[in-house]
Amino acid sequence: MKVAVVGVGLIGGSIGLAARQRLGAHVSGYDPSAGALEAALTRGAIAEPCSSLEAAVADADFAVVAAPVQVLGNVVREVLAVSNDECVVTDVGSVKRAIVQQVDDPRFIGGHPLAGAETAGVEHARADLFADATWYLTPTTATRGSHFERLHRFITRIGAWPSAVEPETHDVVMASVSHLPHVLANVLVAQAARVLSAEGERLPATGPSFRDVTRVAGANSAVWGGIYAANADALVAAIDDLVARLTVVRGQLASGDAAGIAEWNDGARDDRRRLLEADLAGGEVHELRVLVPNRPGIVAEIALALGRATIDIVDMGLYPSSGSHGTVALWIRGGVVAEQAEHLVRDLGLEVVRA
Amino acid sequence: MKVAVVGVGLIGGSIGLAARQRLGAHVSGYDPSAGALEAALTRGAIAEPCSSLEAAVADADFAVVAAPVQVLGNVVREVLAVSNDECVVTDVGSVKRAIVQQVDDPRFIGGHPLAGAETAGVEHARADLFADATWYLTPTTATRGSHFERLHRFITRIGAWPSAVEPETHDVVMASVSHLPHVLANVLVAQAARVLSAEGERLPATGPSFRDVTRVAGANSAVWGGIYAANADALVAAIDDLVARLTVVRGQLASGDAAGIAEWNDGARDDRRRLLEADLAGGEVHELRVLVPNRPGIVAEIALALGRATIDIVDMGLYPSSGSHGTVALWIRGGVVAEQAEHLVRDLGLEVVRA
Repeated sequence: MKVAVVGVGLIGGSIGLAARQRLGAHVSGYDPSAGALEAALTRGAIAEPCSSLEAAVADADFAVVAAPVQVLGNVVREVLAVSNDECVVTDVGSVKRAIVQQVDDPRFIGGHPLAGAETAGVEHARADLFADATWYLTPTTATRGSHFERLHRFITRIGAWPSAVEPETHDVVMASVSHLPHVLANVLVAQAARVLSAEGERLPATGPSFRDVTRVAGANSAVWGGIYAANADALVAAIDDLVARLTVVRGQLASGDAAGIAEWNDGARDDRRRLLEADLAGGEVHELRVLVPNRPGIVAEIALALGRATIDIVDMGLYPSSGSHGTVALWIRGGVVAEQAEHLVRDLGLEVVRA
Repeated sequence: MKVAVVGVGLIGGSIGLAARQRLGAHVSGYDPSAGALEAALTRGAIAEPCSSLEAAVADADFAVVAAPVQVLGNVVREVLAVSNDECVVTDVGSVKRAIVQQVDDPRFIGGHPLAGAETAGVEHARADLFADATWYLTPTTATRGSHFERLHRFITRIGAWPSAVEPETHDVVMASVSHLPHVLANVLVAQAARVLSAEGERLPATGPSFRDVTRVAGANSAVWGGIYAANADALVAAIDDLVARLTVVRGQLASGDAAGIAEWNDGARDDRRRLLEADLAGGEVHELRVLVPNRPGIVAEIALALGRATIDIVDMGLYPSSGSHGTVALWIRGGVVAEQAEHLVRDLGLEVVRA
């Protein structure tokens, strides 16, 4: 297996390391920075540094584009232009609507691993960066099913959990759970800097809640400028919603509404518990076999239907046949969840059997 | 030395443990809950459970009131009424204006240790809860100097750093660096719960920034209701300031002002650095980030290595990850010292980068 990593920073480099160590892949690398390429080689993240995209991608089974969000569209198109028909092309950008709109190719599937580190650069790349991480994928009806299946398996084999999602949903959710927290971190440090200098006080050495909230303040502008710009509308909506919620609490505080404050606080505890519990799943893995028409987009439809219901596909296999139909095998964890998955797939008008 | 602990929860119990273990004090305890008193005895946080305030405080050198903010004024006054002239009376409440206004006695000094834990209750009390914690004190012109000196020494001897502050300043600063982050945590989990249910998505398994920001969501209503109420005006002002700042960013996002966003983000990075540097007495604070395997004892190893070289860790943060490794951030004062620390940590076989 050959994997081409286009852009060898922390994420690209970690994919290279994981592909080499866990899958025994041959990993080629391309990066506009010769220094980064050399550092990737030193780190062992790639085996073959290439001076052109074309050389890196030649005969690759997978091409992973790990470039800043601003240039993603162009780089992905360039990669597709020099890739062969069997190459699966994907990206790792933090915003997904733009790239999915810009690229319409059956070989491309948008991706976003929810992993990272405090420290950027390939010298911090690790083979286990994606261990147990959610890895969002945004297949469309144009996506070739066999390509999706291969990418799905590639991701599970490097230890992450692929989860299909609509690009719109992805961006709205990320606006709330990632981009807004970054905005708040920035705003809070600015406020605290003003308060502390006005009051002649220094930051308390131990302000655990403040430290938690502001850890991501001033994240790399080159990376985050692109993310903020690409997801500006969803982020603006999230800010508006946040301000509306703050306004309610402000009113309760100003009027001394102790009962309202207590209810709001208890509600937050319940919300947090629900969010944490949603993250737990367990049970035996069940296999479903789905008879599918041989048409483009069918695999994406299934994956998205299960993704919407927050059902993880532990693994999948495609068994095409020479006729008009093929079989998709899905492995789902937990009996109740598998049954739910079965119903959802039937609702798409497909035949399902428990293997 | 006799120390009376009035209210034996996590904070009161930890003071009792520290006073017994570090100072060899005789520690008496009083609590309206007989169960809490018994648990404190079991935990070793007190040596002598008392059925009345009067008995607990009799002949005490120090009386520490660790009661909810709502009832603090009454309890402190009751304690003062039954204390002798030499007894230093203090509290540990998170809001300081109200109590200082309510109590005017030369023996009383308001206090607030910046320490706590996810878990309340005396069964989680620890003798080292206050190790290197800032412990705010609010002496007034009415405070007897010898009492202040004794309390200051008591606090340093249990391992914390006393810092005198005006009650007004304390409350304004806490509104920004503690109470507002708690409010935001609550608001963010409510928003995320709504978004995720509306979008049919669950919380991504790894959303590190979201997890950091919302760790304190839904903190104990009994405790936090009182804090929010007692500091409502400062908190309302902090919310107003935050909303004004968010409104500026919202405008930049909506109008696609990339330069403005970049400037704002860079400003936040500078603010964060200044806030960390403000914590120094001499020399700039440097941040080291250490990649550590997720195993017990590793943090102790690092701390001991630096301790042996008499290098102070100004602050530290642990950022576990889902993989086999996490990150430990260390803030070290002085360029030369930070470099020395870097070498020592490398000598442990760990990867270090300057942030």
